[in-house]
Amino acid sequence: MTMDYIYFDNAATTPLDGEVLKKMQPYFSGIYGNAHSQHYAGRQAAYAVDCARDRTARILGCKAEEIYFTSGGTEANNWAVKGVCSANYGKKNKIVVSAIEHPSVLEAALQMELYGFERVLVYPDNQGIVQPQSVEKALCGGDVAIVCVMAVNNETGVIQPVGDIYSVCKKAGVHYHCDCVQAAGAIPVSADMADSISLSAHKFYGPKGVGALVVKNNTPIYPLINGGSQERGRRGGTTNVPAVVGFAEALDIAVSTMAESSARMTALRDKILTGLSKPFIALNGSLQNRVPCNLNLKFGGYVNTQLMAYLDRRGIAVSAGSACTAGTAVVSHVLLALGLSEEDARSSLRITLGRYTTEDDVNKLIEALNSAFADLKRQ
Amino acid sequence: MTMDYIYFDNAATTPLDGEVLKKMQPYFSGIYGNAHSQHYAGRQAAYAVDCARDRTARILGCKAEEIYFTSGGTEANNWAVKGVCSANYGKKNKIVVSAIEHPSVLEAALQMELYGFERVLVYPDNQGIVQPQSVEKALCGGDVAIVCVMAVNNETGVIQPVGDIYSVCKKAGVHYHCDCVQAAGAIPVSADMADSISLSAHKFYGPKGVGALVVKNNTPIYPLINGGSQERGRRGGTTNVPAVVGFAEALDIAVSTMAESSARMTALRDKILTGLSKPFIALNGSLQNRVPCNLNLKFGGYVNTQLMAYLDRRGIAVSAGSACTAGTAVVSHVLLALGLSEEDARSSLRITLGRYTTEDDVNKLIEALNSAFADLKRQ
Repeated sequence: MTMDYIYFDNAATTPLDGEVLKKMQPYFSGIYGNAHSQHYAGRQAAYAVDCARDRTARILGCKAEEIYFTSGGTEANNWAVKGVCSANYGKKNKIVVSAIEHPSVLEAALQMELYGFERVLVYPDNQGIVQPQSVEKALCGGDVAIVCVMAVNNETGVIQPVGDIYSVCKKAGVHYHCDCVQAAGAIPVSADMADSISLSAHKFYGPKGVGALVVKNNTPIYPLINGGSQERGRRGGTTNVPAVVGFAEALDIAVSTMAESSARMTALRDKILTGLSKPFIALNGSLQNRVPCNLNLKFGGYVNTQLMAYLDRRGIAVSAGSACTAGTAVVSHVLLALGLSEEDARSSLRITLGRYTTEDDVNKLIEALNSAFADLKRQ
Repeated sequence: MTMDYIYFDNAATTPLDGEVLKKMQPYFSGIYGNAHSQHYAGRQAAYAVDCARDRTARILGCKAEEIYFTSGGTEANNWAVKGVCSANYGKKNKIVVSAIEHPSVLEAALQMELYGFERVLVYPDNQGIVQPQSVEKALCGGDVAIVCVMAVNNETGVIQPVGDIYSVCKKAGVHYHCDCVQAAGAIPVSADMADSISLSAHKFYGPKGVGALVVKNNTPIYPLINGGSQERGRRGGTTNVPAVVGFAEALDIAVSTMAESSARMTALRDKILTGLSKPFIALNGSLQNRVPCNLNLKFGGYVNTQLMAYLDRRGIAVSAGSACTAGTAVVSHVLLALGLSEEDARSSLRITLGRYTTEDDVNKLIEALNSAFADLKRQ
């Protein structure tokens, strides 16, 4: 990345923190053993993994053996959905998911229809909040194997009423999986939030290719990736030691700097909102129940891909929809679920601040967007 | 790893080549974009992934869009088994796998029994070779969704008659998946060997946490990990850019140095065989049809875990069984399938040479093993 490139797409991915990379380096070519080998090279690697697991468990408030490292948030979400469904096969056949879930949840649930499961969607209100009553209603008929409502939406940054949703699920005796990929480092996250939670390191300045599924002990769940006895027989594959070390280090930094970081980002975000106070700009989703790094704005009449390209030419990265769907012509399913028209969804941009966002970056963004309003045509 | 630690467990994992790591470094904190983002940061990352994919395709002799990057060989094997089975659900219900497959194939196939599939095991001969006729026999009854026979066994290093097995599968119109995890870098590997092949970078001096499933276009296969439109909609999750870059670089080095490396390792391996010519030592599996890096030896009367511990105390790493099962008390399913008794399997060690194995290492191994024979009790 060139020095003067300005990055407002931290919800898509974040740069790996240099301090985290430093902690990972010894485990590439030096301490390279297979953490499952019984000799010294293996024990050295296993020790690093054990430390990372213990550290993660302390941060999330659970037992070390409840942490399962995965290749990322998407694998973790797929595992939760498919693994819990498989464990309930022949007993319960409904999968209740919010309509604003990440594709890794929505699509995993849809694929399970092959085996006779039924995906039931729960819609959010127009503020982007999935109301616990809506979940409760979906649970009425019984037969529900799993409920998935994320902690923070990846497009709007809206925080969901996870505590109340968990209560509803507990009452019904249904497994509650909470996708915490966008939440970790932005709001307090703990293993107690749900029966299973998923995390992804590259969203909090850790390495790509590593995440975790945290599952309470004694939870019926089948592996997604079968293999040897790694991860207590529940997730096969040679442990990615440097990545796991990086995961724990990054999570620790993200959580311990969260308060300070949130305050700083809130101020910067509010500056953008004020600086862009055009009458045709509206915020998608609740401002109050929102992580500080996220702005999802509707620029009435402007086409988001044109705005994005305009900013890109000026060295500023923002997103039209999430990165997971940005390569396609698909309109944001999240914004449609909030009740936006297709046209409004197509005029919306996601701007996500990060640890390295400066006031100067924010000024340049405001300036560039204000020029865009003058230079581009409204439709 | 300390300088004087001697590593004879290269089938479990290999150190990341320093040259490969150098190529990966720019993609951690510098070019960190999400390869699916449409802005400059994303395009930079996507370009690196495209180059790695093209390079891999050239090496394996296939189209770039037939390469699907995964988190490793275990994911790739699980995907092949479960993805092809899912695509055949309701049509064909048998999974034919050799009894010496890696647990990622064996266990994945077993788990599919939940959904009405049936795992059919094909046994090797006493040389560790899965005969094409045995596969043909298993295909007789029809209803077979997939056949899995690996290219090189991970415990014995025995090379399988992949070409003939593929012919048998083609004749029967059945998908043939070939686990090439232990083959890449040891024998010539190409996408034409099967309908799908799997690879794992950390077995050929690449990074942990990345592999590939190579699938011929128009092959019916469902995703294992659903998500966004990454990997042509077939494997969700943010692309692990540095790992993918490392995968291609490592594969290129491994393949281009294979001939030289094989000659060197064959000489070193033969030196061990000669140096240990005790009457109570026997080789498990064919010597002729075997990758040069592998020795799987039966030390009649000695217990493999005791031998391994003895060598470990002298700073030498070997393996009692594969790393994937080494953490458990399980006897090698591969050696049992070859017809060894439990006792003989428990007296067998896997010694695997690698790129960095020296003649001095080999001398020290011979010396240490010969001392072990004197110091340890035969049972």
